[in-house]
Amino acid sequence: MKNKPIKKRTHNYKKHIGKAPGTLVYTGVKTEKLLHIESFDYTKETLNESILTNIEDAKIHKSTDSVTWINIDGLNSINEIENIGKQYELHPLVLEDIVNTTQRPKIDEYDDYLFIVLKMLYYDNDENIVIEQVSFVLGKNYVLSFQEAEGDVFDTVRERLRHGNGRIRGLKSDYLLYALIDAVVDHYFSIIETLGNKIEDLENDLFAGNTRENINIEVQQLKREILKVRRAIFPLREIINRIEKGEHPLIYKRTITYYRDIYDHLIQVSENIDIYREMIWSLMDMYMTTISNRMNEVMKVLTIMSSIFIPLTFLAGIYGMNFEYIPELKYKNGYFILLGVMFVLFIGLLFYFKRKKWL
Amino acid sequence: MKNKPIKKRTHNYKKHIGKAPGTLVYTGVKTEKLLHIESFDYTKETLNESILTNIEDAKIHKSTDSVTWINIDGLNSINEIENIGKQYELHPLVLEDIVNTTQRPKIDEYDDYLFIVLKMLYYDNDENIVIEQVSFVLGKNYVLSFQEAEGDVFDTVRERLRHGNGRIRGLKSDYLLYALIDAVVDHYFSIIETLGNKIEDLENDLFAGNTRENINIEVQQLKREILKVRRAIFPLREIINRIEKGEHPLIYKRTITYYRDIYDHLIQVSENIDIYREMIWSLMDMYMTTISNRMNEVMKVLTIMSSIFIPLTFLAGIYGMNFEYIPELKYKNGYFILLGVMFVLFIGLLFYFKRKKWL
Amino acid sequence: MKNKPIKKRTHNYKKHIGKAPGTLVYTGVKTEKLLHIESFDYTKETLNESILTNIEDAKIHKSTDSVTWINIDGLNSINEIENIGKQYELHPLVLEDIVNTTQRPKIDEYDDYLFIVLKMLYYDNDENIVIEQVSFVLGKNYVLSFQEAEGDVFDTVRERLRHGNGRIRGLKSDYLLYALIDAVVDHYFSIIETLGNKIEDLENDLFAGNTRENINIEVQQLKREILKVRRAIFPLREIINRIEKGEHPLIYKRTITYYRDIYDHLIQVSENIDIYREMIWSLMDMYMTTISNRMNEVMKVLTIMSSIFIPLTFLAGIYGMNFEYIPELKYKNGYFILLGVMFVLFIGLLFYFKRKKWL
Amino acid sequence: MKNKPIKKRTHNYKKHIGKAPGTLVYTGVKTEKLLHIESFDYTKETLNESILTNIEDAKIHKSTDSVTWINIDGLNSINEIENIGKQYELHPLVLEDIVNTTQRPKIDEYDDYLFIVLKMLYYDNDENIVIEQVSFVLGKNYVLSFQEAEGDVFDTVRERLRHGNGRIRGLKSDYLLYALIDAVVDHYFSIIETLGNKIEDLENDLFAGNTRENINIEVQQLKREILKVRRAIFPLREIINRIEKGEHPLIYKRTITYYRDIYDHLIQVSENIDIYREMIWSLMDMYMTTISNRMNEVMKVLTIMSSIFIPLTFLAGIYGMNFEYIPELKYKNGYFILLGVMFVLFIGLLFYFKRKKWL
Amino acid sequence: MKNKPIKKRTHNYKKHIGKAPGTLVYTGVKTEKLLHIESFDYTKETLNESILTNIEDAKIHKSTDSVTWINIDGLNSINEIENIGKQYELHPLVLEDIVNTTQRPKIDEYDDYLFIVLKMLYYDNDENIVIEQVSFVLGKNYVLSFQEAEGDVFDTVRERLRHGNGRIRGLKSDYLLYALIDAVVDHYFSIIETLGNKIEDLENDLFAGNTRENINIEVQQLKREILKVRRAIFPLREIINRIEKGEHPLIYKRTITYYRDIYDHLIQVSENIDIYREMIWSLMDMYMTTISNRMNEVMKVLTIMSSIFIPLTFLAGIYGMNFEYIPELKYKNGYFILLGVMFVLFIGLLFYFKRKKWL
Repeated sequence: MKNKPIKKRTHNYKKHIGKAPGTLVYTGVKTEKLLHIESFDYTKETLNESILTNIEDAKIHKSTDSVTWINIDGLNSINEIENIGKQYELHPLVLEDIVNTTQRPKIDEYDDYLFIVLKMLYYDNDENIVIEQVSFVLGKNYVLSFQEAEGDVFDTVRERLRHGNGRIRGLKSDYLLYALIDAVVDHYFSIIETLGNKIEDLENDLFAGNTRENINIEVQQLKREILKVRRAIFPLREIINRIEKGEHPLIYKRTITYYRDIYDHLIQVSENIDIYREMIWSLMDMYMTTISNRMNEVMKVLTIMSSIFIPLTFLAGIYGMNFEYIPELKYKNGYFILLGVMFVLFIGLLFYFKRKKWL
Repeated sequence: MKNKPIKKRTHNYKKHIGKAPGTLVYTGVKTEKLLHIESFDYTKETLNESILTNIEDAKIHKSTDSVTWINIDGLNSINEIENIGKQYELHPLVLEDIVNTTQRPKIDEYDDYLFIVLKMLYYDNDENIVIEQVSFVLGKNYVLSFQEAEGDVFDTVRERLRHGNGRIRGLKSDYLLYALIDAVVDHYFSIIETLGNKIEDLENDLFAGNTRENINIEVQQLKREILKVRRAIFPLREIINRIEKGEHPLIYKRTITYYRDIYDHLIQVSENIDIYREMIWSLMDMYMTTISNRMNEVMKVLTIMSSIFIPLTFLAGIYGMNFEYIPELKYKNGYFILLGVMFVLFIGLLFYFKRKKWL
Repeated sequence: MKNKPIKKRTHNYKKHIGKAPGTLVYTGVKTEKLLHIESFDYTKETLNESILTNIEDAKIHKSTDSVTWINIDGLNSINEIENIGKQYELHPLVLEDIVNTTQRPKIDEYDDYLFIVLKMLYYDNDENIVIEQVSFVLGKNYVLSFQEAEGDVFDTVRERLRHGNGRIRGLKSDYLLYALIDAVVDHYFSIIETLGNKIEDLENDLFAGNTRENINIEVQQLKREILKVRRAIFPLREIINRIEKGEHPLIYKRTITYYRDIYDHLIQVSENIDIYREMIWSLMDMYMTTISNRMNEVMKVLTIMSSIFIPLTFLAGIYGMNFEYIPELKYKNGYFILLGVMFVLFIGLLFYFKRKKWL
Repeated sequence: MKNKPIKKRTHNYKKHIGKAPGTLVYTGVKTEKLLHIESFDYTKETLNESILTNIEDAKIHKSTDSVTWINIDGLNSINEIENIGKQYELHPLVLEDIVNTTQRPKIDEYDDYLFIVLKMLYYDNDENIVIEQVSFVLGKNYVLSFQEAEGDVFDTVRERLRHGNGRIRGLKSDYLLYALIDAVVDHYFSIIETLGNKIEDLENDLFAGNTRENINIEVQQLKREILKVRRAIFPLREIINRIEKGEHPLIYKRTITYYRDIYDHLIQVSENIDIYREMIWSLMDMYMTTISNRMNEVMKVLTIMSSIFIPLTFLAGIYGMNFEYIPELKYKNGYFILLGVMFVLFIGLLFYFKRKKWL
Repeated sequence: MKNKPIKKRTHNYKKHIGKAPGTLVYTGVKTEKLLHIESFDYTKETLNESILTNIEDAKIHKSTDSVTWINIDGLNSINEIENIGKQYELHPLVLEDIVNTTQRPKIDEYDDYLFIVLKMLYYDNDENIVIEQVSFVLGKNYVLSFQEAEGDVFDTVRERLRHGNGRIRGLKSDYLLYALIDAVVDHYFSIIETLGNKIEDLENDLFAGNTRENINIEVQQLKREILKVRRAIFPLREIINRIEKGEHPLIYKRTITYYRDIYDHLIQVSENIDIYREMIWSLMDMYMTTISNRMNEVMKVLTIMSSIFIPLTFLAGIYGMNFEYIPELKYKNGYFILLGVMFVLFIGLLFYFKRKKWL
């Protein structure tokens, strides 16, 4: 794994400072693309799918009996968003939150509609986690969804709407909202699965004794990814919990079982994230002890080599001296006796280290 | 202990993504085995035990007054499970949860029945912890239980049903459910006992000064096992707590004392797991300090050997020089005087290290 | 302190697995001793103390107006316990809990009686902490107490009963229960005082620079002791809190002040335990830094010795070479000049290390 | 980054000790500047902006129907503050809190007014975080704001008041208070953005392997900054939460949506701070492992050099001895054979270290 | 800073064990001093200050309309305390708590009076923190205060009573109690200020690179002081919170604002203590990394010296050998060529270490 350069200064809260509340400031990535608006209008029997080119058309379905899903991709056309806001009589703060993509997942209950912000997570082509904000407005008979850019996780919902053989076409807008959120939450599982695999890979590397220095950095990056994902996912639990309590008139009792199902999934995802977090901390610990073990091994080699040869060298030094009178030097077998002594010393030290379990 | 290879990619959440809610996807291990369905139908006086070969037979006992336990082993026959679901009028999400074995333990209360998912833990022949999902549906006069595979912890319940001398035959389906859950929880104790023994073994190894490198890995694996067990067991507390509150009409007041007993057991298990967790962290700490102590010892040997012999070797080196005029070399006893000096130095350094408590 | 061998496999949850609920299985230490039953029956004016040899006698005082304390030592006579249970109409699960000595401290409220399990802590003759389970049954006009073995902390209560000059003889069974629990809790203080002293001893050793290797093990054992004590004591707080709320008809308003006093004591004990826990963690930290400091010191000695003498030895080596033409060797004072150079080098290096504050 | 000297003894709680409650003691920085009082008095149609030179004028707008904002800069003129307090009938403790700049953010509800203390955060010219206390008194038709010194974050509010085209001029004093608090909270975002950038800079330095010693100190200082900011910001959440509940008659239902918006912002800020905190701890960990890795590398070089050359030197020492009879010395090619042996040894050791992956 | 010896065995819980509840056992320091009782009896107009020599006099003011403060210094005269207790009809457990100076801060509500125990903190002449227990009994028209020894923090209250120009003389006993507690809490600020300064001093030492070994011990002692202070102060929050709720008839609504003010102060103190705690942990971390950095530096010096001179010494050793035929020795400039080679090697290694950034 190559260390990906860390993108800097990606958050830009500052833009917003000092604006009056309700001022729309888009904080996401600016693209040249225009707004892309698609609309699904359906009853149990009929389906009307279209691409809206004229923003004014968005309002057509507002007061019909059929259920309408209007999906808006691209949030940098502030004026158009404001326009839609007026058609659907949204509170200025709602519009501000829709275009402010640094928004934390949240739910705001208004008399006529529910406003929900959440984060859609998926991997882009470079295996980076992309966090895209999606806002939903659930009204009587309609759901509006706002995304930062085209490309989403809703294709399965579109298919189900088109085929019309499931539950979805026969139920109300609250079930449509459920289906959309469920699609988002389902993708969380693939995110945490990939995270889990990355952790296992690192762990296996460490178990195999691999202590390359940038494991350090990889662990750090994984930690940050988990923090990022955690932050995007955790607040959603509370939101679904609020919906599930079923106190808002737009949520029918029949659908609540389904929301509870999402809630269970979110608990499961959260639990996994927390386990991964603990495992990552464990990995760091393990890495540290592995390094220390290595150091120990290095030190032992040094100590053994030095402790054996430094005394021997000293002995050789003694008989390398040039004193006029060193009796041993005259012995016929002095040299061999000394070699013998050295050998005994050598063996003795080996034994000593053996007994200390350093060999 | 040989390091067991870590099985990878064992979770497969992905399969499910994009399916409509209520779609049954079996996420457990596929086996060739067909469904195995056994049925116990009893009153205080009679017991009718049978193996059902025809799924349609499952419904027979549904509306009788006798209590019926239908136990289904094997969840990969999606159609049959769906069939049973229809006979007992289970909600599609219930069926989805039954076959999705990555489900978190949970309880769902429906008007006519209680749906409970929990995890059965036991050791397989290789001493690995097996986590098998068991789902219960408690209805008036019946309990359905769904297991991933044959082999379970319910034999003691079967025996008590057969002998009929205990409380169980005389009470309702809520007591049967209690007996089944109690059997599962009783096995948790043997799991945590084994975990406790493993921790004590590791601790004794460390106390005995054993610092083999893969203690590191063993500790890590034990940590993961504890995390795994914790995750399987902890949510059950909340479930039993919900049952114990006794608000569901299917739970009779008389049985609640028994559920409270399970609850106490679960608290005890949970407490043990948390203590083990803390002990494991402690072990890591202790391992780290042991390694550091070792390193210290190694360093001391190196330092003592070097500090003693390097200066002596230097002295020998001095008198090994070939200068034409080195007066000491001419002294008759120069050699012996030098040896004396060296000896004094040697003793002096030994004293020094003694005083520093390095010897 | 000698390291005590850690007793292994002391918990034996397994015995119980698969038994029907309400089956009595004694999990404590088996002794040959028979049951020892003592009985105190008193009113303000009279006291009747006796040893019961016949279990049937236990029931005599059940329905009298006088207050009766029946204390049962030894729980391995399952049959006798069951017998007593029948006489006092105790729920089977209560009896199961009485003989299961791995029980967590708990309170169960029944219509006619309160059932309380707690842990009595004291030091045995080898200064080991003994944790003995005591169960109380508080009924109208009687208190039953069940202990694993003879020898307890209730002698002061017995004295007060005999002398009859205090409050105890004039009040009801709820005050007797208070007096008994109070005696248990009072002993907790002596346990934590000993723990506190052990921590202070260790701390003083560390402050004095004592880093013997088995401090490691002593700290670890202390940590485990604290965990053990904590686990025995903490749940009691909740129990007393429940009693103190005074919702059970057997607890009179007048006595509640006394239970609140126990509660305050328990909070104080708990707080001390948590402080000890934090101090122990601190000690480990301190031990680690002390080791590191030591290592640093060792390294400095090695580095100074090596850095000074290795270059000097090199110089001596140069002039020990046998080249035919080494001009310096011919200089009359070559030897002394070299010694001078070496001396200057020596002083220079000493200064260098002085400036680095290594000396 | 140069290490900024840490200012010492900046807190001065002591001044206050022993004074009667309600005694005004200014604890901020004493400046020579006099009080600076500005007043905005407005309705939807009119705006009256003025600088008050006479304190008595402050009271003029108290009972008019127009909304009045009186902003007081400089709190060391105790007498004038007391004077204003009397005019607006503020409780003595309120005045004490206004001038005590070590006050924790808090809200006090009185019958006629709300008293709120919070902290304004901004960077001064030296990029140090300045924490300035701002107190608000919200009354019917008026808002008083007290600041330690001139210079604040309210210019955008002043502008909106002057232009009068937004919501602000048409609404009540509760909306004005919202606008002021919102301006303060908006500035929190720029603080945490700068903190985030600092952390990323440090992280990149560490990723790039930069381990300069004072990274240590920089991390420490960043930690303290985060603690400081956290402490200034966190209590505000609770305050806004209290306002948002809308139980005080001075807060109109219409404005509550706006306060909830501030609350969402504060949650977001808090979450960021906690993430930064976790990241900082991570950085320390990473720094530690980086240091250990470095040490390992250093040790390896030492060990390799020593282990190779110490044995070789020993060999050379052997044949440097002056024994009369050392047969090898007479061999014609003894020297070259020895060089060969040494070379083989050298290569062998290199291989050994290669296999150990130390090279 | 010299390390103060740690006083051992200062807690003496044991004395109390086995006594009947309500038995008075004084656990503080025994002094020869007799009881010192002072009394303030006042209305808005009159003040009667006196030293009571006769304990019986204490009761005089009990039923008058004037407010009376009776302050008792010295708790080892058990009999006198009991005497006072009888006069004021205090519960035996209250008297037990008054003389038991290891009591945790607490509040007990009785029908006729409030009993409050808290801890007075101040520095003695040796800059040690003294923790003295103060107990208050608040009755209708009187406040009793019990201190372990003479010397307290109430002089400012005495002054205010004597001068009578403040609020205090005109209000009831609940305000007097407030004034006394406020005086205690005000002194907490000076304690935490001193702690803060100590932490800053340590931090500056560490920033300046000072790593003397006993920083370790100083940090440890500071940690313990913080633990001690924390434990004395934290429970008070809950106590004031209870008073502030204003449910006891002796606390008038008018005074509650003042108690809330104390509560705010306590929150501030607590927050500071927790910040100090976190900072201390940080310091330990920083100390550890500083030590590691030092070690790294030491290792580098060793490695550089060894790696340079060991190979050179080997070379010198080669040409110090006594082989009969070593051709290089005969070369005219062999010596100088070798010196050149050595010099090149020396420079090369220097470059190598330079490139590794070790120099």
